[in-house]
Amino acid sequence: MSKGLNAAADDTLVRSSEKPGALVFYSQFDEPEPWRVALKEMLPELDFRVHPDVGNPDEVRFALVWRPEPGFFAGFKNLQLVVNLGAGVDSLTNRDDLPDVPISRLSDKGMIALMRSYVLFAVIRYARDMPSFEQAKRRREWHYIHPRPLHQTRVGVVGLGVLGAAVATALAELGFDVRGLDKEEKQVPGVKCMRHAGGWDDFLGDLDILVNMMPLTGQTRKLIGADVFDGLPKGAKFINASRGQVVDEDALIAALRDGHLGGATLDVFENEPLSPDHPFWDMENVYITPHLASITVPEMAARDVAESIRLILSGQDPLHCIDPGKGY
Amino acid sequence: MSKGLNAAADDTLVRSSEKPGALVFYSQFDEPEPWRVALKEMLPELDFRVHPDVGNPDEVRFALVWRPEPGFFAGFKNLQLVVNLGAGVDSLTNRDDLPDVPISRLSDKGMIALMRSYVLFAVIRYARDMPSFEQAKRRREWHYIHPRPLHQTRVGVVGLGVLGAAVATALAELGFDVRGLDKEEKQVPGVKCMRHAGGWDDFLGDLDILVNMMPLTGQTRKLIGADVFDGLPKGAKFINASRGQVVDEDALIAALRDGHLGGATLDVFENEPLSPDHPFWDMENVYITPHLASITVPEMAARDVAESIRLILSGQDPLHCIDPGKGY
Repeated sequence: MSKGLNAAADDTLVRSSEKPGALVFYSQFDEPEPWRVALKEMLPELDFRVHPDVGNPDEVRFALVWRPEPGFFAGFKNLQLVVNLGAGVDSLTNRDDLPDVPISRLSDKGMIALMRSYVLFAVIRYARDMPSFEQAKRRREWHYIHPRPLHQTRVGVVGLGVLGAAVATALAELGFDVRGLDKEEKQVPGVKCMRHAGGWDDFLGDLDILVNMMPLTGQTRKLIGADVFDGLPKGAKFINASRGQVVDEDALIAALRDGHLGGATLDVFENEPLSPDHPFWDMENVYITPHLASITVPEMAARDVAESIRLILSGQDPLHCIDPGKGY
Repeated sequence: MSKGLNAAADDTLVRSSEKPGALVFYSQFDEPEPWRVALKEMLPELDFRVHPDVGNPDEVRFALVWRPEPGFFAGFKNLQLVVNLGAGVDSLTNRDDLPDVPISRLSDKGMIALMRSYVLFAVIRYARDMPSFEQAKRRREWHYIHPRPLHQTRVGVVGLGVLGAAVATALAELGFDVRGLDKEEKQVPGVKCMRHAGGWDDFLGDLDILVNMMPLTGQTRKLIGADVFDGLPKGAKFINASRGQVVDEDALIAALRDGHLGGATLDVFENEPLSPDHPFWDMENVYITPHLASITVPEMAARDVAESIRLILSGQDPLHCIDPGKGY
């Protein structure tokens, strides 16, 4: 073992003997218990408190939160770290009461695996003509369509963050012709990456399937609208697994109704839960799932949370730090 | 370059200058043209003839066939190689008029990619509770089900040939808990492999999803019947992407009707095309596709056909040689 590695190991030992203090957990969607159990294993001395039973708020140094209510952070003067209980940080960045401490997001392997499986499912369903077979079944009809080799299906992934890049890589490994688009210069193995400087037309023009993986920021709100749908070839499919507000829903409905878009698979919507009278429910070419393409898996993500706490205690930046100004 | 490699390269040059002779193409399902074009590129001097326009049958040395009619081979006295236009060779092995020449099957990358995509689709659909969301959509209902991490879904793949092993590997790489079963000792990366000597009970007992990838042979006909379905836990799902005759369809229908099986995704059936009055059409927990999980892709498979012809011309065994006695 090299001296450097020894030194690092010693440092970890010293740091983990320091008492980490208290953490406040807040979510109206997630059960606290799996997090308590998983974090107990990693950081036995961490004092895990579930909002609103926080005891003395001045003892709270860490916050593990999903969509905390406005003003939530004001009560905690000694916060050193906020961890967002998911990948999409829009509920933290689109507010003006954020404390001036590092903000970290979760991006565990379990979450990536779930997102990958969701998008693979949706892409394969279109590439293998499954909607036609689903309809043929209702007609009791053996409706053969000769399969196309996978490399003839062109899939565009817009947004090449951690999740978008993982999805694009998985699609390319499976054999699809995958292109990626991002506002920044990105490199993803097996994927032809482009930057969207001015327009998207070069990217959209020959896609069979467009997958939205962009975060919700001030710049991406309703970014996918009539222009984007018009830029796709007739019959193209659209998959949204990031945030509903990135899409102009009226434009999406119009493109689906006039047949320019051949179908959409939507996990996220402008307003959730989707109201029972929303037109999407009755559109045969729309596949709906209730915002669960990907979730944080406590058993796997707790490791990252514990590591971020250790990093903060040793004066370093936490994992997966975000820039509230950029919004991701 | 080593001497051995030089010798091999020289040998190839010599051999490929030899005139390969004529090939007869027979299929009622595949277009000959893509094969003619693709083979022309690899073996420009090959004389490609489409049945029944075969000219002088004594000039035919190679047969590229899918389900040739009984007696087909008798007319070709100088055959040196039969290539099956697909992976499943049951239509060649279950007959008594096979010539005594090497029989080769196709197993190209395009075919493997298609099969992998089909089974991934079917497994993810169950693992991610998609049938529930498909039903909820018809009720216009936002029906949330908290996702389970992929490693909690146990998938069993029975039949670890080229396609079965590729499917099992892809499922394991995606994050599923994958087990494999084969009559022979097999090793597949990331997959816990078992041999089925006496019974299957150890394999079936805790599976969430069973995937059949066995070839159709005398030994596998109706092998998946009531015993196998009873051995699965209540609510398990079944996927068949190999051959319909490997399954006892009456037992499958009974297991689906009494609720012991939670669902089935079927690409293949005892009789194809499935007749319009078959009970499967009306069963909501059955997903039907018309035998297209995987097909041979001429552009990719022609390379293997050309290589097998070159090997035969140089006195060697062709690629993917099968044993008609074993049936695969």
